[in-house]
Amino acid sequence: MTTKYSPMRVEFINPFVTAAVSVFKTMLMCELTRGEILLKQHCQPDHEISGVIGLSGGAVGTVVLSLSRNVAICATEAMLGEKPESLNADVVDAIGEVTNMIGGSAKAELEQFAMNLSLPNVISGKNHTVSFPSGATPISIPFTCEWGSVCLDVGLCEVSEPVPT
Amino acid sequence: MTTKYSPMRVEFINPFVTAAVSVFKTMLMCELTRGEILLKQHCQPDHEISGVIGLSGGAVGTVVLSLSRNVAICATEAMLGEKPESLNADVVDAIGEVTNMIGGSAKAELEQFAMNLSLPNVISGKNHTVSFPSGATPISIPFTCEWGSVCLDVGLCEVSEPVPT
Repeated sequence: MTTKYSPMRVEFINPFVTAAVSVFKTMLMCELTRGEILLKQHCQPDHEISGVIGLSGGAVGTVVLSLSRNVAICATEAMLGEKPESLNADVVDAIGEVTNMIGGSAKAELEQFAMNLSLPNVISGKNHTVSFPSGATPISIPFTCEWGSVCLDVGLCEVSEPVPT
Repeated sequence: MTTKYSPMRVEFINPFVTAAVSVFKTMLMCELTRGEILLKQHCQPDHEISGVIGLSGGAVGTVVLSLSRNVAICATEAMLGEKPESLNADVVDAIGEVTNMIGGSAKAELEQFAMNLSLPNVISGKNHTVSFPSGATPISIPFTCEWGSVCLDVGLCEVSEPVPT
């Protein structure tokens, strides 16, 4: 009864890593240092805020950008020039936009799949987890930066049926 | 700097309402009773689990299906024939699949937008919220059923640029 997904191919991960590093550098003036890539079922619950955006077309997938509270606050300050006092609507818009730009930059690199982006959503809440369907286990890339820790989870599955145009 | 989204048009909401009622009835043998539709910025934090799936193509959007813990457990039991003891991988797959089917059924009704679905993600955690970007305020439809409360938030924005094919 459950939809079957093909596993993510490792060679698809580089466009997302490059996109994250580039978006943080150019938009936020922040250097990300990459940790060890791993397969996992859900984001670690020590991140209080996550941006989620879907990709669909010749491949289907999701990008989840999880941030500590401090990274989210500092990233918003870097974008807007003013430090938000809480995880407010400005933070939601800033983190949604950063997630959108990472997805957009990666999809341009993966043009063979002719993907489009959905709307970015931003999840907040202590100890929340973002899970993927069984069989679509994401590849997870931890990063550190001067503001704290960042984690990028990417699940991308090729679509076997022809895509309607 | 932030992406601008056009507001959701109210006439797009019916396909999602119909899809939710139909999927709960046919897949889970569960009657949903609809409450009053409203505009809001994020899901109420009294729902412990949310399925999120993106739509993209001639319109971009997200479907968020938020469920109380008991609804998630009972829905999984209805699908798999066995009651899960916790919000485990079976629950993630079941709620992801229900969200996927609601999105798929609604996109078929909205064929003028030629949308595709992304991967479903499932958020769990007490007091989590799922926010949409400013300007893409979702329409929210609360439901009740014999198992508890369900909330469907839908944000859908028309894309003004021509869609690449």
